[in-house]
Formats: sequence, C-alpha cells, structure tokens
Amino acid sequence: MQIVIMAGGSGTRFWPLSRASHPKQFLKIVGDDPMLVTTYKRIEPLVSEPDVLFVVGRDHQAETERLMAGKDVKIMVEPVGRNTAPAIGLAAAWLDRHGRGGEPMAVLPADHFVAQPDLFRESLQHAAEVARDGSIVTLGIVPTRPETGYGYIERDSASSLGNDVYEVKKFVEKPNLHIALEYMASGEFYWNAGVFVATPKALLEEFAALMPDFYEGLTEVAEAFGKVDFETRLEALYNHTPSISFDYAVMEKTRRKVRVIACDCGWSDVGSWSSLFEARGGDQDEQGNVAEGDTLVLGCRDSFILARSNRWIAAMGLTRVLIVDTPDALLVSDLEKSQEVREVTSILNEKGKSHLL
Amino acid sequence: MQIVIMAGGSGTRFWPLSRASHPKQFLKIVGDDPMLVTTYKRIEPLVSEPDVLFVVGRDHQAETERLMAGKDVKIMVEPVGRNTAPAIGLAAAWLDRHGRGGEPMAVLPADHFVAQPDLFRESLQHAAEVARDGSIVTLGIVPTRPETGYGYIERDSASSLGNDVYEVKKFVEKPNLHIALEYMASGEFYWNAGVFVATPKALLEEFAALMPDFYEGLTEVAEAFGKVDFETRLEALYNHTPSISFDYAVMEKTRRKVRVIACDCGWSDVGSWSSLFEARGGDQDEQGNVAEGDTLVLGCRDSFILARSNRWIAAMGLTRVLIVDTPDALLVSDLEKSQEVREVTSILNEKGKSHLL
Repeated sequence: MQIVIMAGGSGTRFWPLSRASHPKQFLKIVGDDPMLVTTYKRIEPLVSEPDVLFVVGRDHQAETERLMAGKDVKIMVEPVGRNTAPAIGLAAAWLDRHGRGGEPMAVLPADHFVAQPDLFRESLQHAAEVARDGSIVTLGIVPTRPETGYGYIERDSASSLGNDVYEVKKFVEKPNLHIALEYMASGEFYWNAGVFVATPKALLEEFAALMPDFYEGLTEVAEAFGKVDFETRLEALYNHTPSISFDYAVMEKTRRKVRVIACDCGWSDVGSWSSLFEARGGDQDEQGNVAEGDTLVLGCRDSFILARSNRWIAAMGLTRVLIVDTPDALLVSDLEKSQEVREVTSILNEKGKSHLL
Repeated sequence: MQIVIMAGGSGTRFWPLSRASHPKQFLKIVGDDPMLVTTYKRIEPLVSEPDVLFVVGRDHQAETERLMAGKDVKIMVEPVGRNTAPAIGLAAAWLDRHGRGGEPMAVLPADHFVAQPDLFRESLQHAAEVARDGSIVTLGIVPTRPETGYGYIERDSASSLGNDVYEVKKFVEKPNLHIALEYMASGEFYWNAGVFVATPKALLEEFAALMPDFYEGLTEVAEAFGKVDFETRLEALYNHTPSISFDYAVMEKTRRKVRVIACDCGWSDVGSWSSLFEARGGDQDEQGNVAEGDTLVLGCRDSFILARSNRWIAAMGLTRVLIVDTPDALLVSDLEKSQEVREVTSILNEKGKSHLL
C-alpha cells in the first residue's frame, strides 16, 4: 500500500501555540514529536519511505522537509490551500502517473491522535486489502461518547462483509446531542475520521465523474510532473478550483461502493484545547491536572497548563482552566470555552497584530 | 504635627509583583504611584517636608531615597526588621532628641489604601489636637463589612468626648465571622488600621514602662544620633530586640489614656490580591473585571488581570480569576484562594529559586 499524509492545515485553534507559520501539525502537543512526525512514525511499519507522500502548503514546505530530513519520502507542495478534495486528487494523479494507480493509497490527516497505533495499522491494512476491488474504504471510529463535534458514518448492517467491514448507508453531518445519543445507542454509527483507502485509479474516476473541470486540469498538470512548467500549471489549476472537502465533493455523492471498517483505536482529531486535554489523559496527576514545563500546581483540579516560555507559572485553586504561556502571548481560559480562541485570533487580526498570529 | 511613615514591610503577598527587593510599598497597584508615594502625597497637605520621617529597611533605603528625591524628608534605616514597636520607638527617640518630643506624631503604614484622603486628613488633624494632652489616639475605621482579616477596637460609648472621639474599651484580635457580625451590629467596634497619633514623649514613657530593656538601649542610641558610632549602636540594640508589634507591646497593655476617632474614609490595608481587587472597584468594567495592560477580556466576570510584562494576554470565560503576569513569573489563581500565594513563595524558597522571590 501507499500512504498520503495531508498536512495542509493552517488552523489557529491552538493559539497561542499554533501560529500561521506553525500550525497544529508542527506542534509537539501530544508525545515528544510534532504531530506530523508522530503520524509518519505511526505508519512507518506499514510501508517503505518512497511509498509515503506528503501534501503541504507552500508556507510549510521548509518545515516539513526539515522534519523529514534523511527520509526518502515525497513532498508535494500546493500553491494555495483548497481543502482536501484537490489535495487528494493531486496525490492520486501523481501516484497514477508514476505507475502506482492500482495500489491502494491510504489518506491520513497529519494532525490526529491515535491512542492505539497497532489497531489503527491493522485497520489500514485490512482496508487496503478490501480496496483492491476498486471500492473506497473508510475507517469508522467506534464512538465512545455522544460527540457533537464529529461527522458520522452510518453502516448498512445487512451488508456485513465480515471482519467489521460494512457497506456505508450514508455520511451524516455533525449531529446535535439528542441525535448523537441515538447514534450511540443504535450501534450503527461511527465517527468519520477523514481516513480512507482507495486506489488512485478509483479516486481519479470519481474526480472525472464528480469534479470534471478539476479532473481535466489535473490531467494537464499530471503531464507536467517533473517538468519546468509544473508549478505554473498547478497554480493555474488551483486558481480556478474551489475550496471543497473530499467528503463533500466525493464521499457523499459517489455511486461507487463505499465501505466502512470499524476501528476502536482511541482516535481523536484533537480539534480543540479541550479535546487535546482529553487525549492527554495519561499525563494527568491525581487531581486530573495536566501540567507541562516549569509549573507549580496548588489546589487545582482538571486544569491544563502548558508552560512554553522561560517563565515560571504558579496555578492556584483553579478548576477546569487552561493556561498556555508562550514568549509573546498568554491564553487563560475556561477549558469549556477554549474553542472560542478563534474569536481571539480574529480580534488580533482586526487590530493588525499579525505578529501574534 | 509630624508624620512617621513605616515602610519596613517585606511581604510577598503580592507575588509575583512583589519581590524581596520590591515589596508592596514600592508597587504601583492602586493609582499611578507606588503606594509609599501615594501615602506621602496623602499627608503632604498637612505638614512641611522636614516634618516627615520614614523608617525603612536597609534593602529598601535606596529605593525610598529615589522616590523621595528632592524632598527634604528624613529617612531612618533599620539594620534589620523587628516589626513595628522598635521602629516607632526609634522614630519617637529621634524626634524627641531633635526637640520635637511634645509635638504629636502620626504613625502611618506606607502601604495602605484610602479612598477619601480628605476625611483621612481631617481625622489625623483631629487626632493630633486630642493627643496634645498626652493620650494615644487611634483611628478607628467604621466597618463596612464583617471582615475577619482585621483586628478591631472596641469603644467605650459612655466616655464620648464629642466629635466621634471615645475612650478605647479594648483592642481585640481578628474575630471569626459570627463575632465579626456581632461587632458590626453593635456599632461599638472599629477596624484597627494601625494608624495612631501621640507625642514622642508619651510614646517614650510607654516604652520605658513596657519595654524597659529596649528603652534603655534606645536612650544610648539616641545619644549617638548623627555621630559615627550610631549605626553600630543601633545594630547592637536591634540584635537584642525581639520582633514585636506596637499593638501587642504597647497598645494592648498601656495604662495611659487611649482614644479612638471614628473615621469612615474608605480605608483598606490592601493585604491580599482580593482586597486590592476590592480597592480597585472603580476600575471595573461592566462585567466587574479589572484589566490592566495589553489584555483582551472575553466573557469573563469579576476577574482581575494585571499584564506587567511585554506579553499579550487573552482571558476567556473566567469567573473570579486572578492573572498576574511579570517577565519571569506568572500567577493564575482563583481570586478567593489568592492569599495562599505565601505557599508559592515558600515552595520557591525551598526549591532554591531565590531569583524569583
């Protein structure tokens, strides 16, 4: 199999740690490595280096090259971010052009957390076997709580193919709590982790059918791989391509067989400070605090303290409070309200404080 | 009258803003000036410069001289802190030795807050008139809440001398809440602000009666004022003097007439972060937050944010939280628990992190 790692994210949900030049996939927030490196190490046992392809934004090419120095991996650079559909199309076209169109490729976001990498790898390998027949195989994460922040995948139980593989009945948007509780109770729904496996050929057929303009441009770009006018052509294509997710453009519309493999590997998209806090449950002290760096924690409960400056931090009597200290900016927030950090970055933007973004 | 300003404090209750080299009296925490300067300006309309005497610790002499540069005030330096009784004795002896023993002296801590300085000055002047008969006259602050953090003064209502002046029945220690409520209801109790007026001669007689060893040594020291061996003598005296408060050593034991003048001037000893927060009520925004410096406050209530570094601070969704940011240390605390900052400084001390103290 081959692996495509999508590292185009530019989110500011982890401000003040994440910045425009240093988005989440480059942060060391779970474990000792940047998330992109952890993602790479997670799949390293499955493939050889040349079978790994990164898709990154232009601003993050240098950092990705630095992190992958010495590895014989391929790094493709997008001239501008257009969400996941164009990035996946580009990767599929490159692999197809290089004679690997029939070999299943797994698409993985670079910035997710997996508590049990063994189970994750098992599911990927299983998915690759299934995808050899031309189907698209998604990983369906077994829900552990009625999460309202994820999209779900409904399986068609009657269509069980054995070994936790099902046909997909449909993809559904983020539910409200009531519906999420029903999903959990039914046992028919999985979290959509944005991880799937298909052959590049199958994917290109989908782009031809569902994004014909993009597919046409992509074919021209593919002819220029390795040539001098490649970048110019790619830029021209991206300039005329809308920003659209692969889920929306392909998964929800395709008539091809789409299957789901149930996977219970402790996955999280780590999409907010509070979900990072959950992902780091193993680092908790007896009062449920996670504290990192030069900190003194007195009488606090369930609080999350990241000292990423040379400052000494004392936290006293706090409950469910987030503290993130960096050399030039400090965030102190109720942990439940921490997703509102987008409001902070938008205000910083308005105030022209771009050096803090 | 003459004014003695006691600036010997070395507290760490305002860590990380207050440090050993920079205790509370030197902090700009209410208004635009260091508290010691505010204390000086508060009494400036009452006296001429040479009538003002500061008593400070050796470590703080330079800073006091810097703040009082150009003022013709007297600054006396204690070799080591021994609480208020020795400091007051030293000031009284100096004034007496310089021919001012019969002129009432007001003793004021350098680090208190007064919302209505006019009323405070009126009470001091009134007290000075009363003290000319040799009595000790304390200011009794009319309680505005059942405070358990202050000592109280009980008046003898039957002995009213008119104009809010009473004989003191007794001084009482910090009460529990039940007793504090009774004190408030009775109308017979005042807060002890540690502010009093008496002639140096009267005070020296008290020291002679109640601290005879100290008084004897003080007499020898007084003979050396302005001479080369003054510092050596003073150091010898202080080495053999116990650390003891004037309230405990004199006020609670004296047989001299002690009077109290009721004063409703919006006084606070500003003894903790939470009492500072109360004292700065005028700076509150509509949600009850007090925020100072480069800060963004979103969805917070009754929180207190002091940005005293070059860092930008975002606070989100907090209720009654204190944030104090300095270049090398950060405190985030529940406002109610902020008096436990002593525990932080004691742990810093144990860990040998004296550069943060």
